[in-house]
Amino acid sequence: MRFHTRKWIKPNDLNPNSSLFGGRLLEWIDEEAALYSTIQTENHRMVTKYMSEIEFVSSAKQGDIVEIGIDVVKFGKSSVTLTCEVRNKMTRKTIIKIGKIVMVGLDEHGNPKPHGKTKIEFVKDRLNEDY
Amino acid sequence: MRFHTRKWIKPNDLNPNSSLFGGRLLEWIDEEAALYSTIQTENHRMVTKYMSEIEFVSSAKQGDIVEIGIDVVKFGKSSVTLTCEVRNKMTRKTIIKIGKIVMVGLDEHGNPKPHGKTKIEFVKDRLNEDY
Amino acid sequence: MRFHTRKWIKPNDLNPNSSLFGGRLLEWIDEEAALYSTIQTENHRMVTKYMSEIEFVSSAKQGDIVEIGIDVVKFGKSSVTLTCEVRNKMTRKTIIKIGKIVMVGLDEHGNPKPHGKTKIEFVKDRLNEDY
Amino acid sequence: MRFHTRKWIKPNDLNPNSSLFGGRLLEWIDEEAALYSTIQTENHRMVTKYMSEIEFVSSAKQGDIVEIGIDVVKFGKSSVTLTCEVRNKMTRKTIIKIGKIVMVGLDEHGNPKPHGKTKIEFVKDRLNEDY
Amino acid sequence: MRFHTRKWIKPNDLNPNSSLFGGRLLEWIDEEAALYSTIQTENHRMVTKYMSEIEFVSSAKQGDIVEIGIDVVKFGKSSVTLTCEVRNKMTRKTIIKIGKIVMVGLDEHGNPKPHGKTKIEFVKDRLNEDY
Amino acid sequence: MRFHTRKWIKPNDLNPNSSLFGGRLLEWIDEEAALYSTIQTENHRMVTKYMSEIEFVSSAKQGDIVEIGIDVVKFGKSSVTLTCEVRNKMTRKTIIKIGKIVMVGLDEHGNPKPHGKTKIEFVKDRLNEDY
Repeated sequence: MRFHTRKWIKPNDLNPNSSLFGGRLLEWIDEEAALYSTIQTENHRMVTKYMSEIEFVSSAKQGDIVEIGIDVVKFGKSSVTLTCEVRNKMTRKTIIKIGKIVMVGLDEHGNPKPHGKTKIEFVKDRLNEDY
Repeated sequence: MRFHTRKWIKPNDLNPNSSLFGGRLLEWIDEEAALYSTIQTENHRMVTKYMSEIEFVSSAKQGDIVEIGIDVVKFGKSSVTLTCEVRNKMTRKTIIKIGKIVMVGLDEHGNPKPHGKTKIEFVKDRLNEDY
Repeated sequence: MRFHTRKWIKPNDLNPNSSLFGGRLLEWIDEEAALYSTIQTENHRMVTKYMSEIEFVSSAKQGDIVEIGIDVVKFGKSSVTLTCEVRNKMTRKTIIKIGKIVMVGLDEHGNPKPHGKTKIEFVKDRLNEDY
Repeated sequence: MRFHTRKWIKPNDLNPNSSLFGGRLLEWIDEEAALYSTIQTENHRMVTKYMSEIEFVSSAKQGDIVEIGIDVVKFGKSSVTLTCEVRNKMTRKTIIKIGKIVMVGLDEHGNPKPHGKTKIEFVKDRLNEDY
Repeated sequence: MRFHTRKWIKPNDLNPNSSLFGGRLLEWIDEEAALYSTIQTENHRMVTKYMSEIEFVSSAKQGDIVEIGIDVVKFGKSSVTLTCEVRNKMTRKTIIKIGKIVMVGLDEHGNPKPHGKTKIEFVKDRLNEDY
Repeated sequence: MRFHTRKWIKPNDLNPNSSLFGGRLLEWIDEEAALYSTIQTENHRMVTKYMSEIEFVSSAKQGDIVEIGIDVVKFGKSSVTLTCEVRNKMTRKTIIKIGKIVMVGLDEHGNPKPHGKTKIEFVKDRLNEDY
């Protein structure tokens, strides 16, 4: 699993218990799933269709840095199934895990649109870069 | 199921597809679960421990009004298990459903704290009001 | 008066005195008035036209749960006059009261648009539901 | 009346009608009243106690620039009464007017604290600057 | 230099060190530069093109009031070069200084659009007001 | 340069021209610089001290995905100097570049605190992981 996006926990991300607000964490994950599936399918109209059960393993506090990991489980016809883990950047302790997140790509009328992808691609390969 | 909290979908709640951002919806649900379980257990330190699978049934758009319904499934010793549905206020169409959300009450050291509740209570009864 | 929407006071809702920021409270009330009048008049283009004097009765602090109550005072031709109270959910203590909030419904050109309503309606009756 | 603070209306400040959200405007006014009264009374614990009736005269749209004007009506013992007008910066058209906003200064126990001020002061005079 | 816009530092503006988050400060400055250049050039499509080096001179904490000062350095053909300083309103202590901010006005196709201005103008003069 | 954090441009990130608000971009960069320097120096009290000149090379629009790249230029005694580039994830087109960002680590009294680091470290090496 690759961990890209990092978040720095600020006062606005806390619940009244002064630990990381679970709703903020879910918002971050949904955004990461949306952008990751957009990168893979090259379709900007990705919507969340399903999440499997979510276990909140540990919490985090103000000033902690978390990183969000995403991996592809399966490419469907117009969908892509992801798996996600968020962990503390400094200690590697898992904060939350979601086994399956199904993202579906739509066309401009809101109908599922096939993406033709079957495996993970890197932008640098698409662009033929040496980067 | 009782539907209390209502939300008015504003530009800040949209994803780039101009439909309701899934992450915002999850944020709203988590907040409602936290405050509902606080009301029931009278413990302000409620944290989200688990959510069962989530189905995103339909979407919503700018200007729509949604309402968030919560019901209690079970009272544990220090936890309470909720069920949640969000629907469009005007059409009653379901937007999202989560079968089980487990909220756990903590004491000031972060350990589970028994709440002693076994059934839903209404604030008016606690306050002995006729309201 | 019916109290529907509930808010959980988070760090982002505080003023530098660490009590509930009055501006946030007014923002919540205006949103509730807009969505409530939209539900009643079935017009999505409701704008705030007038608020009578506002008394800030008591404050609230982080972690408190407040509930927003709205009632209809009068149906005008294209307007609806509401009354509002926000109180602490757990203690029923009043936080703020606004006697009259006038919301006006507009058509697509920004002109007042008659709504034809004369009394409070429930969505379930419109939908002919038994729910 | 002096108009200091300026705001640039961004997508996040709009209601679903795509005009300036009234709740945002009230939030801005409350913040300006708080900071203006803090400057005058030199007490950082200013809270909003009362607003007289509010007339929403005209609206504003995305990209418009508004300016917030505040003036002192009266100095009380621990309070200060302000008047406020918000207008479009480019056209000078009034957007909203509030005749009286009463701000009260508190001590660290939350009790009213006398400020000893009887007239408007300028920071440059306090600092003995020529600026 | 004229100092107009004022900001009241709230919990949402803090970094995890509980001092003013630098990113928020830059956001405020960029907004002020955009609206100030819009006022001067009467073009609503102003975009930030360049900022010279930025020195973070001192910090600020929750409850502090800051004021943002802007002055024009030079009028270009379709651009305007500004200078900016943010200081603590009560102590006049400088918080941040940016020597040059270049804002460019665009037409509806995104190309530079000449503004025809060569000196600072006041809205009251444009409107022929005595105010 | 390593590009980690990714952002999905949502309506709330736009200026009134409907392109990415420059202030938001600067906010994202400052946050990334703070968390990156915290990871490297293992000091949570990192503050922004200086940014060299900033060139806004190109813009971005709603739905675009950007990635933020950071590299270390130099380790000082209590500071670390970074360089930053933000680019469009899909096209690799540069959006903004900042040659030098100086972050300083503080102790609990707000004084510079030496970090003892002289080169980039990876968390996995600190934790002795094979990951």
